Amino acid sequence: MTDGSLVITNIGELSTNVPGEGPLTDCAVAITDGAVRWVGKSDALPKQFEATPVADVEGRAVVPGFVDAHTHTVFSGDRATEFGMRMRGASYEELLAAGGGILSTVEATRRASMVDLIGESMPRINRMLAAGTTTAEVKTGYGLDVATEVGMADTIGALDMALPIDLVSTFLGAHVVPPEFRDRRDEYVTLVAGDMLDAISDKVSFVDVFCDDAAFTVDETRTICEAAREKGLGIRLHADQLSRSGGTSLAAELRAASVDHCDHATDEDIGAVVEAGVTVVLLPGVSFSMREGYPDGRRFLDAGATVALATDCNPGTSYVETMPFIISLAVVNCGFTPAEALWSATRGGALSLGLEDRGIVEPGALGDLVVLDAPSYTHLPYRPDGGLVAATVKRGSLL
Amino acid sequence: MTDGSLVITNIGELSTNVPGEGPLTDCAVAITDGAVRWVGKSDALPKQFEATPVADVEGRAVVPGFVDAHTHTVFSGDRATEFGMRMRGASYEELLAAGGGILSTVEATRRASMVDLIGESMPRINRMLAAGTTTAEVKTGYGLDVATEVGMADTIGALDMALPIDLVSTFLGAHVVPPEFRDRRDEYVTLVAGDMLDAISDKVSFVDVFCDDAAFTVDETRTICEAAREKGLGIRLHADQLSRSGGTSLAAELRAASVDHCDHATDEDIGAVVEAGVTVVLLPGVSFSMREGYPDGRRFLDAGATVALATDCNPGTSYVETMPFIISLAVVNCGFTPAEALWSATRGGALSLGLEDRGIVEPGALGDLVVLDAPSYTHLPYRPDGGLVAATVKRGSLL
Repeated sequence: MTDGSLVITNIGELSTNVPGEGPLTDCAVAITDGAVRWVGKSDALPKQFEATPVADVEGRAVVPGFVDAHTHTVFSGDRATEFGMRMRGASYEELLAAGGGILSTVEATRRASMVDLIGESMPRINRMLAAGTTTAEVKTGYGLDVATEVGMADTIGALDMALPIDLVSTFLGAHVVPPEFRDRRDEYVTLVAGDMLDAISDKVSFVDVFCDDAAFTVDETRTICEAAREKGLGIRLHADQLSRSGGTSLAAELRAASVDHCDHATDEDIGAVVEAGVTVVLLPGVSFSMREGYPDGRRFLDAGATVALATDCNPGTSYVETMPFIISLAVVNCGFTPAEALWSATRGGALSLGLEDRGIVEPGALGDLVVLDAPSYTHLPYRPDGGLVAATVKRGSLL
Repeated sequence: MTDGSLVITNIGELSTNVPGEGPLTDCAVAITDGAVRWVGKSDALPKQFEATPVADVEGRAVVPGFVDAHTHTVFSGDRATEFGMRMRGASYEELLAAGGGILSTVEATRRASMVDLIGESMPRINRMLAAGTTTAEVKTGYGLDVATEVGMADTIGALDMALPIDLVSTFLGAHVVPPEFRDRRDEYVTLVAGDMLDAISDKVSFVDVFCDDAAFTVDETRTICEAAREKGLGIRLHADQLSRSGGTSLAAELRAASVDHCDHATDEDIGAVVEAGVTVVLLPGVSFSMREGYPDGRRFLDAGATVALATDCNPGTSYVETMPFIISLAVVNCGFTPAEALWSATRGGALSLGLEDRGIVEPGALGDLVVLDAPSYTHLPYRPDGGLVAATVKRGSLL
């Protein structure tokens, strides 16, 4: 997509995320060649932007484009049947016996061609865009063999090229031990940290490991992350989701870019990630769909952590594609104020991805904005079923 | 809108709500002049429909149009600030001091012209339509004086004419005692049951009373409902929402069309409404936005009640416009199965409104259908942030 130029004027309320600056009123934003150049009062537009195309948003609120920092949105098939069984109280064993669980998505994704995978994932990413997500992280992790993991990374790359969204890809070969390695998990860790990483490292920006009792130990996680760091990848971790296994403190030790879930992190764990500057990514969509307790956002916010919010879009535990719903869950169920939730869904996500140029509206930042069909960003949590995104602006182009 | 004719073919899964019939597969529906004429296999379309326009839905799931049986979707202004304050723990008194509460919506609605009111409400109703709602009940109740109550009824009528949705209007003059009658509530009840009812009864189908400790007593409710019944109106009640005040059992006594909320109804109350054939309307959007306990759907379903689900769309306690989100809440939080939730969001709502001709897909029923961007209706609860409605079909016209 060519970078666009656009003046957005008559903004009723603009959330900039500039530190110390509350929402601005009656203002305009000038974007040229994909980047914000000027922010000011609607009637004070500098002469140099007079020839730039204008979008008059008639008093609507504008917020930074959403940055969804944790998704598994590339996958094949769905698990609606498993969801229905779980809602009726089926046990984990019953779900597995009925063909459910993460391995069913691995099987479907291994069977899918790259064309199938693109065809299934593209509508999801288009719905994300329509709901204001302008940057999203997407993980591999449904291949768990070299060819399919590389195919997933290529699929993410192809979708990034094809659609007006920025996708950041993360290698999650260590999502779960695949069945063919069940009795030789050491060999699987060696494969992930060796041949699989070698084959995929040029195609991804981050590595991620599901560090939990049901998946990979702290030591296995450290092995994989250290190998990935040598390849120049940043580190993200699924940590302490199902139990306190030590992943959060490992993230601090490794100075990871993000540590995600953290439901069972201790106060010491949280102190360590704050000290180490690791962004905490909270995923309340999982709590909704799994009927589990919500993460207590205040624990992390009050401890001074940098907190991001994300959908965790995946077919098993959170088939949620849109950030406004996550903002609503964060405010209603996780103790965020509306302002904190908006920040975490934009700037917080950007910082967790190391993308300083977005999630903020100031000269030099990317021209990624969302026009709301509402007078204030406070409508995002207030109206939980969405439908409030009037337009998404990506790098200055009105989508 | 002219009644339409349309053959919908290649339906992967069709939920008909015909008693005893599970979802059909690989089928087609033929609609002429706004009504369903035939349902059968895609390759068995009778000759008489060969000239009818065809929509090939390529294996998608189709469900009956949603019937939202309890809304306050005509109002002026919003209460986002109040919502934000409540999320930060503000007390009811603090909200009132800050200008919040239902009376702030009454003030705004009294000030609004009918043009304003139509302008503010139309986008909401268009979002309902886009999300598959083909019939909605809408209440007055933000006027609380004769002129504004009549103006609200006229507004509902104008929106019903202007948009391709069927709106059913309900007179809710007894929503709350307005401030000017605070010290003479008897006079207000007399006004509602007398002059106000006289002025509005030709414009509405139902009467509703908020029968609760904070609003109207059982005796006041009975007085108003009996007067309305003499005018030929059906009865709906807001009952036992905040406390067990006896509204549910009164609904049974009055053989109301519906009794709504019922959070504090006793087992005896529920037995009485089942016996009397009163539909119970549950409103889980309120629980979400107010952080209150969810209604226990199983109590009502297992007792044999006819249960409808609705949004309660209103600016104070549930700014929710779309039924797929309500279906998701009902399954995740209220104990409904996906099939029960779909039935309650379609046929259940229709029965509560006395509309036997919808919420079902069979010859003679209205041609009101929703095409999902999903292979099964089970995706409605599974994917809680919506975006699954590919198209709404109203009286045979593809919207």
